[in-house]
Amino acid sequence: MFKKEIYMARREQLRKDMGHGIIILPGNHEAPCNYKDNTYWFRQDSTFLYFFGLQREDLVGVIDCDKGKDYIFANDYDIDDIVWTGPLPSVKELAASVGVENTGTLKELHDMIYALRSPTCDTPMPLYLPPYRADIRADLADLIGLKYPTVDRHASMELILACVKQRSIKSAEEIAEIEKAIETAYNMHVGAMKLAMPGRYEYELAGFMQGEAWKGNGPVSFPVIMTVHGETLHNHGHNNRLEVGRMLVMDAGAETAMNYCSDITRTVPVGGKFDARQKAIYEIVLGANLEAIRVTKPGITYKEVHQAASRKLAEGYKGLGILRGNVDDIVESGAHSLLMPHGLGHMMGLDVHDMENYGQINVGYDNETRPSEQFGLGSLRCGRKLQPGFVITDEPGCYFIPALIDKWKAEGTGKDFVNFDELEKWKDFGGIRIEDDILVTETGCRVLGKPIPKTVAEIEETMAQ
Amino acid sequence: MFKKEIYMARREQLRKDMGHGIIILPGNHEAPCNYKDNTYWFRQDSTFLYFFGLQREDLVGVIDCDKGKDYIFANDYDIDDIVWTGPLPSVKELAASVGVENTGTLKELHDMIYALRSPTCDTPMPLYLPPYRADIRADLADLIGLKYPTVDRHASMELILACVKQRSIKSAEEIAEIEKAIETAYNMHVGAMKLAMPGRYEYELAGFMQGEAWKGNGPVSFPVIMTVHGETLHNHGHNNRLEVGRMLVMDAGAETAMNYCSDITRTVPVGGKFDARQKAIYEIVLGANLEAIRVTKPGITYKEVHQAASRKLAEGYKGLGILRGNVDDIVESGAHSLLMPHGLGHMMGLDVHDMENYGQINVGYDNETRPSEQFGLGSLRCGRKLQPGFVITDEPGCYFIPALIDKWKAEGTGKDFVNFDELEKWKDFGGIRIEDDILVTETGCRVLGKPIPKTVAEIEETMAQ
Repeated sequence: MFKKEIYMARREQLRKDMGHGIIILPGNHEAPCNYKDNTYWFRQDSTFLYFFGLQREDLVGVIDCDKGKDYIFANDYDIDDIVWTGPLPSVKELAASVGVENTGTLKELHDMIYALRSPTCDTPMPLYLPPYRADIRADLADLIGLKYPTVDRHASMELILACVKQRSIKSAEEIAEIEKAIETAYNMHVGAMKLAMPGRYEYELAGFMQGEAWKGNGPVSFPVIMTVHGETLHNHGHNNRLEVGRMLVMDAGAETAMNYCSDITRTVPVGGKFDARQKAIYEIVLGANLEAIRVTKPGITYKEVHQAASRKLAEGYKGLGILRGNVDDIVESGAHSLLMPHGLGHMMGLDVHDMENYGQINVGYDNETRPSEQFGLGSLRCGRKLQPGFVITDEPGCYFIPALIDKWKAEGTGKDFVNFDELEKWKDFGGIRIEDDILVTETGCRVLGKPIPKTVAEIEETMAQ
Repeated sequence: MFKKEIYMARREQLRKDMGHGIIILPGNHEAPCNYKDNTYWFRQDSTFLYFFGLQREDLVGVIDCDKGKDYIFANDYDIDDIVWTGPLPSVKELAASVGVENTGTLKELHDMIYALRSPTCDTPMPLYLPPYRADIRADLADLIGLKYPTVDRHASMELILACVKQRSIKSAEEIAEIEKAIETAYNMHVGAMKLAMPGRYEYELAGFMQGEAWKGNGPVSFPVIMTVHGETLHNHGHNNRLEVGRMLVMDAGAETAMNYCSDITRTVPVGGKFDARQKAIYEIVLGANLEAIRVTKPGITYKEVHQAASRKLAEGYKGLGILRGNVDDIVESGAHSLLMPHGLGHMMGLDVHDMENYGQINVGYDNETRPSEQFGLGSLRCGRKLQPGFVITDEPGCYFIPALIDKWKAEGTGKDFVNFDELEKWKDFGGIRIEDDILVTETGCRVLGKPIPKTVAEIEETMAQ
C-alpha cells in the first residue's frame, strides 16, 4: 500500500473533477471457482485499489462529493473468526490506514443509500462504474433499487471520464511498482527462454512462468500465452511439444502485491538458434518495435506511432517480396494488417489493459482522436494523444494466419499490394511478437524495467547458457 | 475426456434415479478477474463435467427424464472467430463426442424452457442445482423466469441427492485420474520440501508449487496453504521468512486436465531436521493418520474413523502431559479438539471438497448419520457410512492456537482433561497436519498415488538431498 496521503489526494482530486454526487466504488468479493468457498486468488477491483488501496474482500468505498466525505463500509469479522484467522485489523483500522475517517456496516450503507431514494430528497441516484462481475452487478441492483439487467446502462459516464483522467497519468510511485512487476517478468521470460528446448511442452514453460510470478508475490497479470502457433492470436492452449523450426511466442506478465502489472512478449526459436527465415521476420518486427520507441513522445497520437511502426513492417515485407508498391500507400490501404491484425499497444497500470472495464473507447480515445474502422488499425486499443506519465505497451507482431490469407486472397482484399504467391511460402511459419512497456516522458519515452534479452544476439546468447 | 459411453451411462443412471423432470445443468462461463476479458483460468462446473465432460465455456446441458433425451445448448463461434482462434469443433461435434445427439442455440434453450411455463402445459419447473456463481444464478433467473434473489431456494433436493449418489462412488477411470493428480502433488511436495530452507519465503515455495501444478497441465485444486503458522487454520498469506525452529505446513494439490483433484498435506521442519518437540508432536499426528488408514473399511462410518484417530491423538497428548484422564472420556468430552478443531477429512473427486456446492450436509451425512454439534467433531465434513469407491482425505492435525487456548482456559472449557499449565509451554509451537487421499476398497482402504515422504526419517532424508 502507498502512504495514505496518496489515496487522500486521489479522492480529493476526484471530488474536484466530479463536483457533485455520491460515488459508490465496490471492492470485489472472493471469486468462486468450483464451489463458493473454493476461490480463485483474490483480486481487488482496480478502481477501488486506486482510490482506497485496501486488499480485503467485501469492502465498499463511498466518496461523497457534496459533503466532502469518504467512507468505507464493511462488516467486521466475527470475534470467533480470530481463532481461525489470527488477529485481523478492524474496518475502522483499515479505513484509517488510507485516510478514511468514516466507516459503517453494510446495513448502514444500505440505509444511507435507501435514504437517497426518498421522494423528499432531491439527491440524484448515486454514481457508479459499469460492473464486470455478476455478483457486484447484483449488489448494485439491490443497493440502488434497480433490476439486475438494467444496472449497466445506468453507470456514470462522467465518473468514467474522471477516473480515466487521473489514472492515465502514472506517478513516480506507480512507475516504481510497474518496474517491480517487470523485474518479475524478467525472471519469467529469461527462465522460460532457457527452457525453450525441443521435447518440452508449452505447459511446462507456462507453468514455470506462473510459478515465477507467484514467487514475485503476485499473480500473473493475464493468462500466459505460450505457443508455437503464435499465428493463432487467441490461443490459450499449452499442449504442443516444442520442436526445432518453430518460433515460440511467450506473452506474459506479473502483478506486484499491489496489483501493478507488467506485460512483456518475447519470441524465441525453439532450441536457441534462429534460422534465416526466422531471423528475417524477427528483424522486421524488432525494427517496428524500435521505431515506436524512437517516435513516441508527448503530443503525438498513439495512432501515429502505430502507423510509424506499420511503415517499418511494410518496408520489411516489401524487402521480402511479400508486399509490393509504395510503403505509404500500403499503410494507407491497410494491406500490411493482413500480417498484424491487431493494434500496436494499450495502456497499462493497475490493469494489464488499463481501465478496460470502463470501456476501451473511453480510455484509448477522446473527442480529438476516434477509432478507425479499418481492419487492423480498428483494433488499436489506444489511439489518443500521448501525455507524460502514460504507460503503454509497444507490441508489434507478424503472423502468417492461413485462414486469413486464404480469405483475403479469395475476396481479392489487398490484391494491389499483397503478393499472394510469395505469401504461400510463409503459411507454415507461425508468428512473432515483441513487446515492451514504455513510459511517455517529458521529451520522449523510456522503456521500463530491467532490459530483457531482445535482439537476435541477446536471445541466442541467453538460450546458450 | 473419458470415452463417450461413460457419460451416456451416467446420464442414463441419473434419468433412472430421478424418474421424471427436465434437468438443467449449466456449464460455467469464463470468470472475470479485473475486467470482463481478463479472466481467471477457465474451470468447468463439476456436475457438468461429470455428466457431459466438455471443457468449453458457455454450454448448457439438459437431461430430459420424461422423453429420455439429452441436449447441449450453446452458440457456435462466429465464422470470423476462426481467424483468431484456429479451427474449433462445432457444438454439434462437441455434443457428439460425449454421446449427445440433440443440440441447439441458447435462444432455442430459452424457447424450450419458456414453453414449459405455459399454463396449458403441466410440466413442472425444470430442475437445477443451487448455483455458486452469480452469473449462473442470473442465467437461471432469466431462463426459468425467477427473481434473482429467489433462485437458490428453488433448487432441487431430489436432484442433489441423485447426483451425490452417483458421484460418491468413484469408478476405476476416476481413481486413475485422481492418482495422476497425486503424481503432480508428489512433484509439488517433494520439490517444496527441498526448498524449505532458512532464508526463503513462504511465497517462493507456494509459487514453486503452483508452477508444478501447471506443469502437470492443470490448476491447483485449491489455494496453496504454505505457512510456518500452521496454527492459523485459515491462513492464505505467504509472507513469512522460513526460520529454523518452525514447522512448515504445506497443504496443496493439483487438478488434472480433466479436473480430478489431489489434496495432500505434509509438514516439515524448516532446515530439514526435526528437533525433539517437533518429532514428539509429529509422531502423534502420524499415529492418528495411520490409525485412520488401519480402521477405514466399508460399513464403518467416517465419524467412527475420526473418533479412532482422535483416541490416538488423545493418547499422545496424555503421554506429553498436555491432557489427563481416561482416553475414551477425553474423546467423549471433545477436549482433544482444542488441538484439532477440524474434522478428519472430506470426500474428494472432481472437487477437492467433493460436491461441496450441493451443501456439505447432503454429501457427508444422511438419515442414518447426522452431524454432531460438538466443537471439533461438528466440523467433520463427512460422517456417513463408508462404501467401496469412496475417496476421502485422512488429515489429522495438531495446532497450538494461543487465542483458542486462552479462551478455553478463561471459560473453564475442558478443565477436567486439559493441563493448561503444561499447554502454556507449547503456545509458540505452531501446527502440524499430515494428509493423504484414501480409497475405500471392498475389504479396507488403500492410500492413493505414489507415496510421498511421510515418516520423520523419509522427510529428513528427502530434505537432505
